[in-house]
Amino acid sequence: MQFSMYEIIKKKRDGGELNRDELAYVVRGACQHRLPEAQLAAWLMAVFWRGLSRRETVDLTVLMAQSGSQLDLSRLPGVKVDKHSTGGVGDKTTLVVAPLVAAAGLPVAKLSGRALGHTGGTLDKLESIPGFRTDLSMDEFLGQVERIGVAVAGAGAGLAPADKVFYALRDQTATVDSIPLIAASVLSKKLAAGADAFVLDVKVGSGAFLKREEEAVTLAETMVETARGAGRRARALVTDMNQPLGRAVGNAVEVEEAVAVLRGEGPAAVRELSLELGAEMLLLAGVESSRESARRRLEERLASGAALEKFQIWVQAQGGDPHVAERPQEVLPRPSCRRALLAGTTGFVQGINGEEIGLALASMGAGRTGADAVIDPAAGLLVEVSIGDEVEAGRSVLGWVQGTEASRVELALPRLLDAFRIGPEPVPAPPLVYRRVG
Amino acid sequence: MQFSMYEIIKKKRDGGELNRDELAYVVRGACQHRLPEAQLAAWLMAVFWRGLSRRETVDLTVLMAQSGSQLDLSRLPGVKVDKHSTGGVGDKTTLVVAPLVAAAGLPVAKLSGRALGHTGGTLDKLESIPGFRTDLSMDEFLGQVERIGVAVAGAGAGLAPADKVFYALRDQTATVDSIPLIAASVLSKKLAAGADAFVLDVKVGSGAFLKREEEAVTLAETMVETARGAGRRARALVTDMNQPLGRAVGNAVEVEEAVAVLRGEGPAAVRELSLELGAEMLLLAGVESSRESARRRLEERLASGAALEKFQIWVQAQGGDPHVAERPQEVLPRPSCRRALLAGTTGFVQGINGEEIGLALASMGAGRTGADAVIDPAAGLLVEVSIGDEVEAGRSVLGWVQGTEASRVELALPRLLDAFRIGPEPVPAPPLVYRRVG
Repeated sequence: MQFSMYEIIKKKRDGGELNRDELAYVVRGACQHRLPEAQLAAWLMAVFWRGLSRRETVDLTVLMAQSGSQLDLSRLPGVKVDKHSTGGVGDKTTLVVAPLVAAAGLPVAKLSGRALGHTGGTLDKLESIPGFRTDLSMDEFLGQVERIGVAVAGAGAGLAPADKVFYALRDQTATVDSIPLIAASVLSKKLAAGADAFVLDVKVGSGAFLKREEEAVTLAETMVETARGAGRRARALVTDMNQPLGRAVGNAVEVEEAVAVLRGEGPAAVRELSLELGAEMLLLAGVESSRESARRRLEERLASGAALEKFQIWVQAQGGDPHVAERPQEVLPRPSCRRALLAGTTGFVQGINGEEIGLALASMGAGRTGADAVIDPAAGLLVEVSIGDEVEAGRSVLGWVQGTEASRVELALPRLLDAFRIGPEPVPAPPLVYRRVG
Repeated sequence: MQFSMYEIIKKKRDGGELNRDELAYVVRGACQHRLPEAQLAAWLMAVFWRGLSRRETVDLTVLMAQSGSQLDLSRLPGVKVDKHSTGGVGDKTTLVVAPLVAAAGLPVAKLSGRALGHTGGTLDKLESIPGFRTDLSMDEFLGQVERIGVAVAGAGAGLAPADKVFYALRDQTATVDSIPLIAASVLSKKLAAGADAFVLDVKVGSGAFLKREEEAVTLAETMVETARGAGRRARALVTDMNQPLGRAVGNAVEVEEAVAVLRGEGPAAVRELSLELGAEMLLLAGVESSRESARRRLEERLASGAALEKFQIWVQAQGGDPHVAERPQEVLPRPSCRRALLAGTTGFVQGINGEEIGLALASMGAGRTGADAVIDPAAGLLVEVSIGDEVEAGRSVLGWVQGTEASRVELALPRLLDAFRIGPEPVPAPPLVYRRVG
């Protein structure tokens, strides 16, 4: 069959629905760099404009997933459930959920990413543990899951190469914020990573890519429907990102906070969201039949120390210093300077802008400002207030900023201070989970 | 001032209005090949989607006109009026109007184009006259207008280079059919060619780029408003292209038909449209104050032989054989084969698809099928019927097809026959002029 990219662009431009063969032509042409970037960019803008039907979204996602190598997890026992977050600030739930769920008997074979824009990356956080390796070979990865029930590694370059081509174009042509294109981008990589089921954590708020609940719900619905259309199980939670999750934002500080939660301590929001996501994973896997029993099982694994023990075994298996589970402050990189962020106004905390915090921390080395930026694992922020708290100008500490380069820390202070919106009226704390989808 | 193409795409994508500086950044970046084609293509699709305001269209057009060299016609006396057709089949009016209007005292300094797609090109038609040169230098061109009042030459590569970049991208990204982009493309070249006023012939129908009257009127209005916004005078006629204009379609055959009209003979439609367009030119120039008096002056120039004489002087000035004005059949290239197109059905001619005819003739060498195609000046069609005529299967000649390569003529016959739509019901002949705009 003969295709013309011109006709495909025109069809979408005029609001038509592309069939699977047409989408395959686009995906193949993008991967093999056979189609001019101008045509792909015009097509992406037409898709941004006209959208994609559910069927188109499923087809595009599956075709993108099939555009490169695909993991085969079939040698692992049972239902393989993956968890994915659309990206937030202070979101260290993977560090808690992976060992927690593994301790509850579910195999966790997870591929993760790095810091991007204002959001952190699980791999960067894990690598702040001295010795921790994320570049596992496929055999090491699967063997480790078989042996100890959990492994988290970098995705490598071979998964869903079509997504890389599309993403690079979307990033320069203002076609990133398209719900079906976001869904296809996320899920194509997840499908290629081989899990049978997905728990999707769709973040919404000032620190998320999506700012409005309505958009987040639409994305959650689109992703759940697309995953199901591709023959997988899926569930999504729309969760709050109007303030960072927990106290710690950074790399080493987030590992330390995750260890605290695994010890039964740490901020309530991190514990709560980890339990919610973990419970959904057990439900999707079919190993528990009610949220209550699933949560009970996970709470028991935390209380018994089984989750912390699994974390320790996991860190050791990937070459990290296992003492991080006992004495994180001694093992993790320490900052050489620390500054208090003092409230400039008296009033109530009305919002904590995670995007601003993420960008300021990236400038301090906690994230990436360029492709070859080096991460400072000790750079971070410990937030001391939450939305609704009352603060006093010049006296209340909003947070502690820390890093290894004093000049970069100094430069980031005004921006970090600006991220805290303080007003005269008290406001209620936002809920942690807005919606369950699927 | 600092611009970001990403932000400019995003602004247009979201329906915003771009200011002049932003448009200048796009035009400059396109010309200098400093902006990625992917960004330009996404921007063009966003413009296709959201449109351009009148102000944006004027700014874009003027910026494109200023992107290369610009003709200075100020050494010529009086108001310089240009005529432009959006492209049709059998449209040889320039060959009639240029000497006719010059004979009426208006200087005609016209840059023309070549055959494109299914439409013919004035330069190709003129070059079928043995010896005729269209590659005049600027001094030759202006000097000839000063001396004899008329010159028609090729536009060269230096006019509105931004349009060439945009057009090449639009052509591959399905963003050609955008009214403001068409207006900017046409008028940027016309503005750069230096005339003070424009008579625009917007073709509509099966043989035109625009098929629906509503679209053609919108384009005519947009072009007139844009030209005025750029400080020029303008008027547009929306004219019929549901059948070829006149009998002759091709190159030498169209010159022959133009000579016939200049002699006071030839098809009524060609004479009538030439008089209408010429009268608008005299009105715009201010040398006549009513259409009636303008037409009378032009009719007198035809009847006296002054127009034919001007044609002869013009041809001679550009190196062509002046005997073409007296004995065109002897001077012009002759076809070596000729075939009759016989009606296959009995009934009434309901439509004559100019696009099909244009493409079939291009395949015979009358137009261009590729960038380096060689024109066969003798290839052509003489249409023997008009919409509304009654025809008899196997007996009525719909037209004569001619060329110098018998095999190519044979191959084109079925397609040419298909262009004639014959049905059982009589239909009224379409009007020649649908609308006057401005």
